[in-house]
Amino acid sequence: MTTPQLGVAVIGYAFMGKAHSNAWRNVGAFHPEVPAVARRVLVGRDPAGVAAAARQYGWAESATDWHDVLERDDIDIVDVCTPGHLHHEIAIAALAAGKHVLVEKPLTNTLAQSTELVAAAVRARSAGVQSMVGFNYRCIPALALARDLIANGRIGAVREVRAAYLQDWLVDASAPMSWRLRRAEAGSGALGDLGSHVVDQLRFLLDDEVAWATGHLATFVPERPGPDGPEAVTVDDAAWALLGLSRGAVASVEVSRMAFGRKNGLAIEVFGTSGSIGFDLERLNELWLDSGAGRTRVLVTESDHPHLSAWWPPGHVLGWDHTFTTEAAKLLAAIDTGTPPEPSFEDGLAVQHVLDAVERSAASGHARIDLLPASPTP
Amino acid sequence: MTTPQLGVAVIGYAFMGKAHSNAWRNVGAFHPEVPAVARRVLVGRDPAGVAAAARQYGWAESATDWHDVLERDDIDIVDVCTPGHLHHEIAIAALAAGKHVLVEKPLTNTLAQSTELVAAAVRARSAGVQSMVGFNYRCIPALALARDLIANGRIGAVREVRAAYLQDWLVDASAPMSWRLRRAEAGSGALGDLGSHVVDQLRFLLDDEVAWATGHLATFVPERPGPDGPEAVTVDDAAWALLGLSRGAVASVEVSRMAFGRKNGLAIEVFGTSGSIGFDLERLNELWLDSGAGRTRVLVTESDHPHLSAWWPPGHVLGWDHTFTTEAAKLLAAIDTGTPPEPSFEDGLAVQHVLDAVERSAASGHARIDLLPASPTP
Amino acid sequence: MTTPQLGVAVIGYAFMGKAHSNAWRNVGAFHPEVPAVARRVLVGRDPAGVAAAARQYGWAESATDWHDVLERDDIDIVDVCTPGHLHHEIAIAALAAGKHVLVEKPLTNTLAQSTELVAAAVRARSAGVQSMVGFNYRCIPALALARDLIANGRIGAVREVRAAYLQDWLVDASAPMSWRLRRAEAGSGALGDLGSHVVDQLRFLLDDEVAWATGHLATFVPERPGPDGPEAVTVDDAAWALLGLSRGAVASVEVSRMAFGRKNGLAIEVFGTSGSIGFDLERLNELWLDSGAGRTRVLVTESDHPHLSAWWPPGHVLGWDHTFTTEAAKLLAAIDTGTPPEPSFEDGLAVQHVLDAVERSAASGHARIDLLPASPTP
Amino acid sequence: MTTPQLGVAVIGYAFMGKAHSNAWRNVGAFHPEVPAVARRVLVGRDPAGVAAAARQYGWAESATDWHDVLERDDIDIVDVCTPGHLHHEIAIAALAAGKHVLVEKPLTNTLAQSTELVAAAVRARSAGVQSMVGFNYRCIPALALARDLIANGRIGAVREVRAAYLQDWLVDASAPMSWRLRRAEAGSGALGDLGSHVVDQLRFLLDDEVAWATGHLATFVPERPGPDGPEAVTVDDAAWALLGLSRGAVASVEVSRMAFGRKNGLAIEVFGTSGSIGFDLERLNELWLDSGAGRTRVLVTESDHPHLSAWWPPGHVLGWDHTFTTEAAKLLAAIDTGTPPEPSFEDGLAVQHVLDAVERSAASGHARIDLLPASPTP
Repeated sequence: MTTPQLGVAVIGYAFMGKAHSNAWRNVGAFHPEVPAVARRVLVGRDPAGVAAAARQYGWAESATDWHDVLERDDIDIVDVCTPGHLHHEIAIAALAAGKHVLVEKPLTNTLAQSTELVAAAVRARSAGVQSMVGFNYRCIPALALARDLIANGRIGAVREVRAAYLQDWLVDASAPMSWRLRRAEAGSGALGDLGSHVVDQLRFLLDDEVAWATGHLATFVPERPGPDGPEAVTVDDAAWALLGLSRGAVASVEVSRMAFGRKNGLAIEVFGTSGSIGFDLERLNELWLDSGAGRTRVLVTESDHPHLSAWWPPGHVLGWDHTFTTEAAKLLAAIDTGTPPEPSFEDGLAVQHVLDAVERSAASGHARIDLLPASPTP
Repeated sequence: MTTPQLGVAVIGYAFMGKAHSNAWRNVGAFHPEVPAVARRVLVGRDPAGVAAAARQYGWAESATDWHDVLERDDIDIVDVCTPGHLHHEIAIAALAAGKHVLVEKPLTNTLAQSTELVAAAVRARSAGVQSMVGFNYRCIPALALARDLIANGRIGAVREVRAAYLQDWLVDASAPMSWRLRRAEAGSGALGDLGSHVVDQLRFLLDDEVAWATGHLATFVPERPGPDGPEAVTVDDAAWALLGLSRGAVASVEVSRMAFGRKNGLAIEVFGTSGSIGFDLERLNELWLDSGAGRTRVLVTESDHPHLSAWWPPGHVLGWDHTFTTEAAKLLAAIDTGTPPEPSFEDGLAVQHVLDAVERSAASGHARIDLLPASPTP
Repeated sequence: MTTPQLGVAVIGYAFMGKAHSNAWRNVGAFHPEVPAVARRVLVGRDPAGVAAAARQYGWAESATDWHDVLERDDIDIVDVCTPGHLHHEIAIAALAAGKHVLVEKPLTNTLAQSTELVAAAVRARSAGVQSMVGFNYRCIPALALARDLIANGRIGAVREVRAAYLQDWLVDASAPMSWRLRRAEAGSGALGDLGSHVVDQLRFLLDDEVAWATGHLATFVPERPGPDGPEAVTVDDAAWALLGLSRGAVASVEVSRMAFGRKNGLAIEVFGTSGSIGFDLERLNELWLDSGAGRTRVLVTESDHPHLSAWWPPGHVLGWDHTFTTEAAKLLAAIDTGTPPEPSFEDGLAVQHVLDAVERSAASGHARIDLLPASPTP
Repeated sequence: MTTPQLGVAVIGYAFMGKAHSNAWRNVGAFHPEVPAVARRVLVGRDPAGVAAAARQYGWAESATDWHDVLERDDIDIVDVCTPGHLHHEIAIAALAAGKHVLVEKPLTNTLAQSTELVAAAVRARSAGVQSMVGFNYRCIPALALARDLIANGRIGAVREVRAAYLQDWLVDASAPMSWRLRRAEAGSGALGDLGSHVVDQLRFLLDDEVAWATGHLATFVPERPGPDGPEAVTVDDAAWALLGLSRGAVASVEVSRMAFGRKNGLAIEVFGTSGSIGFDLERLNELWLDSGAGRTRVLVTESDHPHLSAWWPPGHVLGWDHTFTTEAAKLLAAIDTGTPPEPSFEDGLAVQHVLDAVERSAASGHARIDLLPASPTP
């Protein structure tokens, strides 16, 4: 094959590294219309570990220093799957090196870092270097269909959104301490981890901006067994927000890592003036739509549904990991056409502004925080 | 039959009057264990209308002045089904006349009136005169079972509650003005009408008190066609509250008359340390319970489930109106045994304190309002 | 009240007697448009038992001999709620005495008796005496709506029906013997008890006749503890049928008293050339309809849905017992207008012809039994 | 990498070729514990088409003559994804050449061919050459869990199974003729295509054999537009079977390509003496289990559920295509350990014996066909 290929490096080989490797391995088989990729390097700190992972996941090489990788001419795309506190440094460097960059969500751990990263992305973009933040749920066919239906007026003007992202992996108070529960490393708890997906979906589905926010945080288990005895949990276990959108909709948001029985329960209901629509991530292939006759369960597996023509016949359902393959295809198409992809780093920053307002409201007795100058109050 | 019967008068013959008449007509057939009743008088303002209703619903007589009815010796129970602004006057008078009193929810339209009514009920109670507020959803077998399961520790200590009561009868902006949309008459909108049920269920299910509240109100359709042209809507179309319970649980509440597609959607999910439980009024005979193995749908129609031994074999589902028959039986049993029934007027007042705090928070930029001295903050 | 009333007598005061008493007690309150009734006599064999039941359920009198009741001039309607082997004698006598007759399903225990009963009903009908068989599920709003939708072509021509009526009250092999498990008394097992409802619904929903039948019966627990030791079960525990309809549809039917976990699970799915429709009795207020966009759950509680204008606002669900009240109203309307009601005794007989064919097929190695001369075979 | 790899050739590059290519591309990434594979050749008749597919799906080469491929020393595994009438010839030759063979279901189009193929597989097996038939639904975690639960006695002895596999891609009578509707090429219609999966699952879930069968076939649309005008459809559009299992269970089966609204609806319910269990392919990640407390929805995504440790964290759902990856891993493990994999060619033949009996019963007025000498009749 003499077709030019885009060389890819993935930084990080844990959970997200595995999921992204899967995407890069499969994107060509389902998306022959985008540039082909060469899976060149998987990067990680532990030489033996990353070498084994590279072999298993199908990478040509492994490496331990991402700086070296950025200097290689045969790397066109850098995919950042590290913990959040490393995103800023790697992504800035990669953009500076002229690499297209995909950064896992959240964009960074702080507003300041994200603001810098957006500035870097804007500069790079003018030179044809693309960037994207990994809100992969935008690639779920059912949610993409929901956005299309809303944009096409199928439920009228949105008035109310009821959203939650509930998990339960911390429900047991004796579950051990981890870096995800330390503010210094994780930045935030359920709010940043789960709430970022919810806020991104609000913006994506409604094509609107959050105008004001009120929030509350709770840490139900204030300390957990650490390596050296009991250690304080310094992030939230659960968070609540009430958000006003710029066009007048009101959204309630709840996120939790303690909602007994919910494994990956991102549930969203949108109520408009002439219809309503709903989704649950635990039933990823389904959407419900009510435009007057009752709640219709749509099995979103038809070839004319978003992102589905690449896959299987109707009724042959997709899984969670397919979203990353679609995400990779979107980035490759953007690189090919020179059209910046969404979600952009700006989208990532916008989400963080909202989460920051939620935290500030929570810290000040739930006082409403305005994010846009003129907030409507229905 | 020479058995002494308790004479009943119902004040009001509209929607609630029809539902309560149905209860008094049937209570004896399903509850032979409580005192029998004689359906003596149905009271309403329109002589022809109330006479026709009395005939249809099976009352011996009709009357147009409730004061007269209170003077009759053959009336033992007064059941107040009027609009809320009349509750106070009638109930005070009925208690003063030594009648047992059932008052539809909400107890009254104002905190002041409710406080007075509680005082009157306390006095009457010491003389063996019983009183009850009509939160009939406490009589839904599934919700009563949920309370039992929670009380028995089946889901552990409650951390999060996610509750909504969604209807859609006002979704159309051209729906006409009515007294329910005028603050002077209705007191409140969705908050009072639907939120009162939700708050009562929180207290009932968790056996706990609300310690703090944050709230938001929205009127999406600010004016509607009135008899003399456009008229301002002076109550809320939808309301949101975040409530802290005294033992540390956090409850999110949303109520709306504009949630497209929801007809009578009171949905409650309770998450505890070792299980979770959920209910949806549109599937009144079902409860789900998760105590570790997955979400179990329980068809609450077994004879050993609460309130069900009076009715039909397993799988023979009940309807919405059966709750009022159970409610009537509870009041009659209380009269018979001299044990004050629940929900009491105090329960009705407690709900109104919470709704009042929600309104005050909404009016002050969502500031948190404390209802109990020492509020825990998880 | 000087309105002439129709006097009613109910024969039998067990499960069905209780359900029918409830209907007669309430029909006037919800159906002022039909003639009023006077609940005159409840009839049963045990003097004390029937007297107590009459008091409880609101009957003016009780009696122990139904012959006497048939001679009373103040009785206009005789409602037969006895076990099946008594239906024939009572109904024949009641019709001969000029009484309108409602007979619980199944019409009788034998084809011969049912054939005679139909002849008697035809004769009486010409004299303005009405008769009806108690397939009360025709009065479920969701099923009546399904029939209307099918009749109006909403799912096109029906090709396939998938129906089951599953209960589990006999799942335990140590459950004791009862008259329902003796062929001499009960006539049949699950087939007659549950299968009769299914076959009636097939005829009702499709407005079509069964043309051929293939069947299989199973008795999983061949003997059970009787009063004098183990006793043989002489009816079926479960039954299966494949039925061809005259216009070419094929229906599969399964009924069982041993389907672990199903309490009252009458589930029907109808697939047509341009849509499909489904129902589950455990969710009595719901119907699903698919006419191309997905499966729409319809909450059948709107006032323009069948039978619902008499009851409550949208979303206020009905229970199982409401069907009998509607059934009573249908009979009263028929008496009032002189228009014979459905389901008629002929409907009852038609169902029994089908069940008989199923039994004959089961007895002959599943051979297909033709019920109509020219059976189409798609 | 010096690890020896097993060379794979896939014959056929249409729908199944794409799905199997996906499996071979990914199996190593999720199953490092089995031998690694080299994707050597994709085989098809059209040189340009198969070359493009090979490039897209990640094969080293393409070829047009499968005979050549069988002669190559670097091919260890032959995966037959052609239409059914070619299975016999290719698989016989591949086994003779000492290749491990995976054959898509159904094993072949005729009992005779399948019987020969089993004989060949038995011979090859003794020489350590493995063979497997592609009933991939055995690799669905929920169904594998169901089998385990049943085997462990969680629902007691099975009495009744209610199974259907419903699709609707032929519901429109104007859909064109295709080879799948011609008996000469396809062998059978819905019965062979969908019924084979159902019968395999019966045998898999119950670990039992079919003892007798009764069947019915229907062709609702007898002719369709062909390339030269209307052409007769010579296979069934839908089929029904009642099957007796050797240990006394009775299973009803319905399959259809005309069930409006069902896209890929393989639904199975199993009722035992102490529990019941159910599955629906359109919700592939879920199982329900009732062992007494109600119907529990189990999200089958835990790492201790079958086949799931290879994939993602709890709640991160799988899709339809993941089953083929698991299937490939099972074959590779079998080759590695020398333990014959299931489902074997014998399993494929057993399914065809049942489908043959269904066809014979349908052709003889539904007469019961015995498959095992002594069939129990509950």
